[in-house]
Amino acid sequence: MELQSSPLLTDLYQLTMLDGYFEAGMEETAVFEFFVRKLPANRNFLMASGCEQLIDFLENLQFREDELQWLADSGRFRTGFIDYLAKLRFTGDVDAMPEGTLFFADEPILRVVAPLPQAQLIESRLINILHLQTMLASKAARCTLAAPKDSLLVDFGMRRAHGADAALYAARASYLAGFAGTATVYAGPAFGIPLYGTMAHSFIQAHDRETDAFETFARAQPNNVILLIDTYDTEAAAEKVVQLAPRLKADGIAIKGVRLDSGDLAEHARRVRKILDAGDLEEAVIFASGDLDEHKLAEFGAQSAPISGFGIGTRLDTSSDVPYLNCAYKLTEYAGQARRKRSEGKAMLPGRKQVFRCYDDSIMSGDIIALEGENPDGEPLLGPVLRGGERVGYAPTLAESRQHAARQLAMLPSSLRDLEPASYPVRISSALKDLTDAVDRFVAEQAVR
Amino acid sequence: MELQSSPLLTDLYQLTMLDGYFEAGMEETAVFEFFVRKLPANRNFLMASGCEQLIDFLENLQFREDELQWLADSGRFRTGFIDYLAKLRFTGDVDAMPEGTLFFADEPILRVVAPLPQAQLIESRLINILHLQTMLASKAARCTLAAPKDSLLVDFGMRRAHGADAALYAARASYLAGFAGTATVYAGPAFGIPLYGTMAHSFIQAHDRETDAFETFARAQPNNVILLIDTYDTEAAAEKVVQLAPRLKADGIAIKGVRLDSGDLAEHARRVRKILDAGDLEEAVIFASGDLDEHKLAEFGAQSAPISGFGIGTRLDTSSDVPYLNCAYKLTEYAGQARRKRSEGKAMLPGRKQVFRCYDDSIMSGDIIALEGENPDGEPLLGPVLRGGERVGYAPTLAESRQHAARQLAMLPSSLRDLEPASYPVRISSALKDLTDAVDRFVAEQAVR
Repeated sequence: MELQSSPLLTDLYQLTMLDGYFEAGMEETAVFEFFVRKLPANRNFLMASGCEQLIDFLENLQFREDELQWLADSGRFRTGFIDYLAKLRFTGDVDAMPEGTLFFADEPILRVVAPLPQAQLIESRLINILHLQTMLASKAARCTLAAPKDSLLVDFGMRRAHGADAALYAARASYLAGFAGTATVYAGPAFGIPLYGTMAHSFIQAHDRETDAFETFARAQPNNVILLIDTYDTEAAAEKVVQLAPRLKADGIAIKGVRLDSGDLAEHARRVRKILDAGDLEEAVIFASGDLDEHKLAEFGAQSAPISGFGIGTRLDTSSDVPYLNCAYKLTEYAGQARRKRSEGKAMLPGRKQVFRCYDDSIMSGDIIALEGENPDGEPLLGPVLRGGERVGYAPTLAESRQHAARQLAMLPSSLRDLEPASYPVRISSALKDLTDAVDRFVAEQAVR
Repeated sequence: MELQSSPLLTDLYQLTMLDGYFEAGMEETAVFEFFVRKLPANRNFLMASGCEQLIDFLENLQFREDELQWLADSGRFRTGFIDYLAKLRFTGDVDAMPEGTLFFADEPILRVVAPLPQAQLIESRLINILHLQTMLASKAARCTLAAPKDSLLVDFGMRRAHGADAALYAARASYLAGFAGTATVYAGPAFGIPLYGTMAHSFIQAHDRETDAFETFARAQPNNVILLIDTYDTEAAAEKVVQLAPRLKADGIAIKGVRLDSGDLAEHARRVRKILDAGDLEEAVIFASGDLDEHKLAEFGAQSAPISGFGIGTRLDTSSDVPYLNCAYKLTEYAGQARRKRSEGKAMLPGRKQVFRCYDDSIMSGDIIALEGENPDGEPLLGPVLRGGERVGYAPTLAESRQHAARQLAMLPSSLRDLEPASYPVRISSALKDLTDAVDRFVAEQAVR
């Protein structure tokens, strides 16, 4: 059973509900939408991501022999139901906002229209995929916006990401949101993301002399000489770099830069910059890492710290200030009837919806959540991705999605680009309001039926 | 390339450093230790977890043909180095605290002794594996301790866990720490963890009448009748359950319980309990879910809410209050020489260490971090796991590790069992202090060499 693609990577209740639908013969068309209920206080916008991995999952959805056998052996399900699962594939329609699109609370970013059992079964993994990358891309986009102009941002967070998947998709989501690349090697073969990396403190410590460590590294990796200088004494190490440079230069090896990983990074950078400049290493750049996030990046910019590249690690890969989004995948229509639950604090909008975005001089000026088929002002954001389980139209490359994300960020109102909280106008169309009221009357009747 | 086992799931600098070691012929024995630098404010202790997955990774560590080809094509490495990687296996020793062991800041929970390139290469993935499960088991252990006595705790968090393996290992880590089971089906075949699950709101909404939904479900899953009653009006739904019960009973189907997922759970539970009791359903249990964590669990206990089971989701699976630990895997010895870095704010203890634990009347009374070979009072916590890359001794089953974890929690001082911050005495042996001072003198000399 392959973890990534297994339909058993789901909540048990998806299977017990499917059993119920199967027994009751409930296979009419259901509409589910994925949305975020409320933006976290620290997020002025979110960036949609993960759609490609979801589509891949849906296109290959199938119970394998060993999975069916395990279900049968569990004793929870009858043979007829297991046979039914064996034949189950995803044959539905999916509409979605392209990856890299910015969105706000209550706006559906993805809609599934499929026979009820299919649309239900995929819920847990669909949320698992879209939530992770959307959360990560949204965090990374804040870093992109907050970083000093023209600086190079690199994802350094693999080790403390929540597992293998989170590490890989943090690399992908941050690249989508404008990072230059990642330290995570696997993201190279998997997605063609540019890789960055130098050395760790252990490399320095394993040598008896710091200078020997620098020289060993430079001779082994002559095209990649960025030296980590904070293991013992940052400024003293910068002096050693200056002394080493002519010897390497004689052999055609240039020192590209140095990395700082501890202490007051801006202050060290200023001192190290002076040492490098005085030592004829004006071309060598300063790269910084260590507990960085969008707030630290903004500070470096405000202080004009002489740092040209940043490795952003744990706080990015875990989205540490917002480690989850209040997202949901909810039934909004079944068998042609709009649906809505009203569990306290968790109400949602019924029906098949579309999001329309208006612009003012190429800057986003407001969104309208409307019913599909309505035609208010603005650009519709959801577009067809799957029809009858098959991809329609063109699958964007990650590079293209990254360009789309950059264009989206360029259209963001300046108040929303800031790290300070700001809000964006999203209104509900009157037709959607009317439908919501009508469904509410139906829902109220449920209590007494 | 299989994500979980690929040696390319690493930071690029591990490979560039390896290249440096290869060019310089540095293959002497290195000692690395994994530890947490500082406990988060919200954690009085941590629980070690993830060792089995790490051992599996190490035993199978090998660069495959396509991985070597990708590295060669990247243009970053010479042929000799690629050939060297092709032959690389993990042949080192590992000592570790058994999974489920409780530990504190600066205490190594795992030690690797191996030729430097091997011990270095595994760093990123080793941290990635141990960090995730240790963080999750530690969060789950707090829930186990805070929950009302004899209540059933179930992991419900798959959907918002950070990806596929975060979901799977949240199920494993929470089961280790005392949960009864998980909703994540894959954890059944993968680890034999008991599964729990009922129905979602969409199941109710897909039916025209709530009662029909209850009945459909009960007839399809007659051994698993726990009905979700908060979709429209919780108490009204409880009345419907009471009305439905005799009809199901006539067909031999018993209603096991109901689930609440929104609103003031304790208050709803009290009202629902009355309705069920008055309706001859005294045996039916009340299960609660929705934004739960250890603090909410403690409140339910304090209020004596009539709830006997809890689904703990997002806050558990993302360890949302502490989404990362300040952990590290550091070189403490190379070629027989103790090592230590002193990067500002990130100093660590040199040498090969052991942790000794003392007890007072079967309650943990204090730990000593000492050098291996010292023999202070107390029980040594690290034991051999791999020798020469091969498993030594007995590999515990998850059930056995879970029993070990329960015994560990039973030995915790009462102040540390509380959710309020409390500390535990950990001291450094005088021999380790002396070694630290000696290495500091060496490190200070580095600045001027």
